[in-house]
Amino acid sequence: MTLTIGIVGGTGHAGGELCRLLLNHPGVATILPTARGGEDLERVHPNLLGSGLAFTTVEQLRERAGELDAVFFCTPSGEAMRSAPYFLERGVKVIDVSADFRFADADRYREVYGEEHASPQLLPEAVYGVTELYRDRVAKARLVANPGCYAITTVLGLAPLLRSGLADLDTAIHLAAVNGTSGAGNKPLTEIMHAEAFASMLPYSLEGHRHAPELETQLTPLAGREPCVDMTTAHGNFVRGIYIQASVAVRAEARAGLDRAALLDLYREHYAGEHFVRVNTFAKQGKLNAKEYGVYPSLTSVTGSNFCHIGVDYDPVRGFAKVVAVTDNLVKGAAGSAIQNMNLMFGLDERAGLGHYGL
Amino acid sequence: MTLTIGIVGGTGHAGGELCRLLLNHPGVATILPTARGGEDLERVHPNLLGSGLAFTTVEQLRERAGELDAVFFCTPSGEAMRSAPYFLERGVKVIDVSADFRFADADRYREVYGEEHASPQLLPEAVYGVTELYRDRVAKARLVANPGCYAITTVLGLAPLLRSGLADLDTAIHLAAVNGTSGAGNKPLTEIMHAEAFASMLPYSLEGHRHAPELETQLTPLAGREPCVDMTTAHGNFVRGIYIQASVAVRAEARAGLDRAALLDLYREHYAGEHFVRVNTFAKQGKLNAKEYGVYPSLTSVTGSNFCHIGVDYDPVRGFAKVVAVTDNLVKGAAGSAIQNMNLMFGLDERAGLGHYGL
Amino acid sequence: MTLTIGIVGGTGHAGGELCRLLLNHPGVATILPTARGGEDLERVHPNLLGSGLAFTTVEQLRERAGELDAVFFCTPSGEAMRSAPYFLERGVKVIDVSADFRFADADRYREVYGEEHASPQLLPEAVYGVTELYRDRVAKARLVANPGCYAITTVLGLAPLLRSGLADLDTAIHLAAVNGTSGAGNKPLTEIMHAEAFASMLPYSLEGHRHAPELETQLTPLAGREPCVDMTTAHGNFVRGIYIQASVAVRAEARAGLDRAALLDLYREHYAGEHFVRVNTFAKQGKLNAKEYGVYPSLTSVTGSNFCHIGVDYDPVRGFAKVVAVTDNLVKGAAGSAIQNMNLMFGLDERAGLGHYGL
Amino acid sequence: MTLTIGIVGGTGHAGGELCRLLLNHPGVATILPTARGGEDLERVHPNLLGSGLAFTTVEQLRERAGELDAVFFCTPSGEAMRSAPYFLERGVKVIDVSADFRFADADRYREVYGEEHASPQLLPEAVYGVTELYRDRVAKARLVANPGCYAITTVLGLAPLLRSGLADLDTAIHLAAVNGTSGAGNKPLTEIMHAEAFASMLPYSLEGHRHAPELETQLTPLAGREPCVDMTTAHGNFVRGIYIQASVAVRAEARAGLDRAALLDLYREHYAGEHFVRVNTFAKQGKLNAKEYGVYPSLTSVTGSNFCHIGVDYDPVRGFAKVVAVTDNLVKGAAGSAIQNMNLMFGLDERAGLGHYGL
Repeated sequence: MTLTIGIVGGTGHAGGELCRLLLNHPGVATILPTARGGEDLERVHPNLLGSGLAFTTVEQLRERAGELDAVFFCTPSGEAMRSAPYFLERGVKVIDVSADFRFADADRYREVYGEEHASPQLLPEAVYGVTELYRDRVAKARLVANPGCYAITTVLGLAPLLRSGLADLDTAIHLAAVNGTSGAGNKPLTEIMHAEAFASMLPYSLEGHRHAPELETQLTPLAGREPCVDMTTAHGNFVRGIYIQASVAVRAEARAGLDRAALLDLYREHYAGEHFVRVNTFAKQGKLNAKEYGVYPSLTSVTGSNFCHIGVDYDPVRGFAKVVAVTDNLVKGAAGSAIQNMNLMFGLDERAGLGHYGL
Repeated sequence: MTLTIGIVGGTGHAGGELCRLLLNHPGVATILPTARGGEDLERVHPNLLGSGLAFTTVEQLRERAGELDAVFFCTPSGEAMRSAPYFLERGVKVIDVSADFRFADADRYREVYGEEHASPQLLPEAVYGVTELYRDRVAKARLVANPGCYAITTVLGLAPLLRSGLADLDTAIHLAAVNGTSGAGNKPLTEIMHAEAFASMLPYSLEGHRHAPELETQLTPLAGREPCVDMTTAHGNFVRGIYIQASVAVRAEARAGLDRAALLDLYREHYAGEHFVRVNTFAKQGKLNAKEYGVYPSLTSVTGSNFCHIGVDYDPVRGFAKVVAVTDNLVKGAAGSAIQNMNLMFGLDERAGLGHYGL
Repeated sequence: MTLTIGIVGGTGHAGGELCRLLLNHPGVATILPTARGGEDLERVHPNLLGSGLAFTTVEQLRERAGELDAVFFCTPSGEAMRSAPYFLERGVKVIDVSADFRFADADRYREVYGEEHASPQLLPEAVYGVTELYRDRVAKARLVANPGCYAITTVLGLAPLLRSGLADLDTAIHLAAVNGTSGAGNKPLTEIMHAEAFASMLPYSLEGHRHAPELETQLTPLAGREPCVDMTTAHGNFVRGIYIQASVAVRAEARAGLDRAALLDLYREHYAGEHFVRVNTFAKQGKLNAKEYGVYPSLTSVTGSNFCHIGVDYDPVRGFAKVVAVTDNLVKGAAGSAIQNMNLMFGLDERAGLGHYGL
Repeated sequence: MTLTIGIVGGTGHAGGELCRLLLNHPGVATILPTARGGEDLERVHPNLLGSGLAFTTVEQLRERAGELDAVFFCTPSGEAMRSAPYFLERGVKVIDVSADFRFADADRYREVYGEEHASPQLLPEAVYGVTELYRDRVAKARLVANPGCYAITTVLGLAPLLRSGLADLDTAIHLAAVNGTSGAGNKPLTEIMHAEAFASMLPYSLEGHRHAPELETQLTPLAGREPCVDMTTAHGNFVRGIYIQASVAVRAEARAGLDRAALLDLYREHYAGEHFVRVNTFAKQGKLNAKEYGVYPSLTSVTGSNFCHIGVDYDPVRGFAKVVAVTDNLVKGAAGSAIQNMNLMFGLDERAGLGHYGL
């Protein structure tokens, strides 16, 4: 199969990553990324030097809709919901890497993004693209809402625990999330210059992150009720990566006898057979107070790959289950999972073009 | 005044930092750091090249106890509680940068450190050295228990909020703390080699960190009751720095009308007049969803200095107060606050030798 | 084709990288990395979590020599020259990523490595594996000496210039090379712990680097005579990557009219058609003194990939051609070029398993 | 003594660093940094949170010239040469941290900066401010041209060698210099955003760096003739620091018997008694090929301090002396040495306000 793929918004980090990954995809023949006009793709994405890829414009892409198999949107909020119908009507499948189709409910969208949804009629059919949870629906979809990077990492990290019924949801779930600076966009701002952000931690949006409602919505079917998600975010001193650390209160009646091993069993079983989600089950040596870094996932294990690594522990004194989940925010958190979904939508091997392990 | 200062344990990060800071202290004439024997101080601490400082041994330091004004312990748990009496009996003031005297209660010590306390008779007089909170007691002390780096940053970060009575302490306080790799000690381990730890996040001790009981104990007098502290720790990709992000539930009856400005007023007033604790009160521009990094403290603002910067916010949807506090783990988190305490104990200007701002 | 591949020395950075890349190689069925015994491969290389790979021992690998198609050596100097004959005699092709077969001359080996060569009879047939220069010989080889990471980057960077005859070789070639800390090995040493090496530059071997003789030897056929190579090396604050900056004096009679454009033409033409070597030809905007970073390659453009990016310039006042070449030291500098050679030796597509672009 | 100090150009890295250091200077009472208007100093320099410093404008500073003891220029090229006379005429001493007064010769200035010098009459009296070399002249100066960060580090690094007469100056001196990203200015540019520059090496100005003529001029009195300086520059993955690696050919007749020890003696003797310049003389263990990082200076040894650390070696095969010199580009490379000069100009202790060691 030789697909022709459009990428609306090819100048940003996610658009560039789609180009990078699709260039190495055995089922993709043509890649058409767009820019406003005039930009040199290889100068914007110097890692693609000599690849021969060049930008087209959205207008030109629309004109060539008849040739396209799928189009990805890597655009600011608002564009995909306006342009998706055009492509869908012409038989082009749409994978939206932006936030436009992540809420099934147009009211919730307005609440969070402060704007009326432009295509509310499409919301019911948009499939939320956590492949591991919604594989069958993704395979049949013509419109996929690819999750945010924080959201997919958290959903994967918490799914086994929430489905198990162990969590006390009268208590908020606490998420401390750290993102690489590629998640800050590529508009030059003083605070995210190298000289400012290097060796630092840059907290932001402490009054409530935009992805918290996305998470509360997406965790609801897993938990059986809508949880309260207290989310705090910062940029760390790295470019790629999402590091999620979650504290989830365990129901009082479920605490007796609970330990790390039991949680590991739960997670291992839940993700048995999943290629891209792996649980770190390394045993502790058991020395009192030893810092055993190896028993949890580290961020760099997944850099550049479509993997999500998950580690767990349990604080028996305070009754909290602890979950650490890491992904590459540009791969599993954006372009990689989008391609994983594309593979399913076209009947390809789910791993096609995504076979490489983390650096 | 020209003090003669001993440093038991001069080869580690905290001991080296004490040397660095005391070399520039106007009231200190002689510095006597110890090592096991044979180490070349300038090779262990190449930033002190040409300083003329050299290691002595603990045995030699004991013989010279009569010359000493104060001795700092930068040793693993267990040594200070065995050696402090020797120096105290000879009129030498003791500032323990290790954990030995942080619990007033010998039973709690045994519980956390798995060992009987060697000098329980000294516990009642040891003053917990958060200078800003216990200035008068520190000034009169002959034995100061310097706080852990996580603890001092958290105590300073939460003191105004807990004293205000706004916090709902039926709910756990959640702390997500990130430490530089200097906090991992200087024993070569594979996981904290540059090639492994660079650009990563390394979580550890998720089953319950040793500093959590220290914190629960120290927050008790501020909160009026013992809080539950759910603490998660990781090393970030930097050498120096503690970054604390805390989520504290606000009592339901206190939520109406609460906002960031009100919390900032509370903090500003609490720390009015404090030199080393500063509150970031920069106003938000108010744009919807803008990432305004500058309105919170960033870690590098305090690097190399004895300052603690604090920022706050409020999530009105979920009712959580958010606090970010940053320090240099080797300065305010160890050697700097120890010197701040020393200054008070000898009637010196509290800022002596600590005047420099962060890089 | 489904190859069975042995990797002698699977615990280090190069061995781990071979595993990582071969796991995603369409022509490789079985990977057998070795360790001393007892190590858990997924714990040593946590990026390979869940891959199912496990270590065997050298002894077991020897017993299974009959099943092997090729064996890679990622061992300290001395082992490959002792073990290669065993495998070669059993029809197993050998790709030596260590330094044992890089000199055609046993005397030169002894001079540089201070030891008698154990298999001098094999030296004449060992092909030096800069694929782009020696493609035909590699394709027919049964023993390939894979170049050092500094050497391959430099040879690729200088080949067009030296072959052109522009260089004045009465003057030394000056190389300032910076390597990531993965090039420092994985033995825990204080100086390369994160807390020491972060944000630093660590120069080493300034009295003459071991790779300088390798370079002088390998540049000889390109230059027509043996050049003097003054090489200086340091580790930079990154894990992966070789950054080479070379200054080459231009012969006085060739300076008139020489400029960056002419050098770019030379390089572009030389590497026309090469997939893995790409020349950065972006035009300068021409503003006086502007820092136009984009007109030269940056290290991160090639991270994780088998590409070598090259940039050039010319200082007309002083008559020096400047060359910058960058590779990932673990890919093009080791495991990647070794696989590129393996592909040729087995008649596979040269790019098989190496298709991904840099991060 | 209580000085009143103006800083023209207080928003950049050097201006901010002057503020930081002068705030901790015992002889300085008032600091008046300027900005265009409207900027909040503590937001531009968050490390100075709560310091009480605020920006004034150049116009206001001129009006208050009568109160000023000295004024520093931290401005783009061109401003100091226009404004210095105003202040000098009013008895204010001038320390120019920009490049305007670094050439004694107005023709050379025009050649390098492409503009006519505005105050050529001042050039003869401007003292080039490498304090360690020109201490007496600085002490009497009313106008000091503070050296560039590359220049001061190189001049200090090469002075003993060039003065010794060992260098063969028919051969170019090769300088490979790496600068932190604070040296790239604080104007937001895509290439120096964190997401682009992190973990990279960013070469620039390979066609001939603007500081090369400054160096050739300044090395002339040390060498006895004008040397050719082939200089290559890049930004490394750190914020602060200049790392200079120089290769200097040794005259053929001086090579016999030369070794690292002899060069170390030369350097140690040259800098005996200098506080801020220190030579790393740690002995090698002598193991063949060991990477002994500790025997050379590392960049982080001087971070945040006014020190310059120097290391040397000798390649006997090729006849090159190797020099490594490191400074903090914002301290010894700019604000620190400017204050060192100010101290001399006002008869203060040369070390006043600069006493702290590197981090």
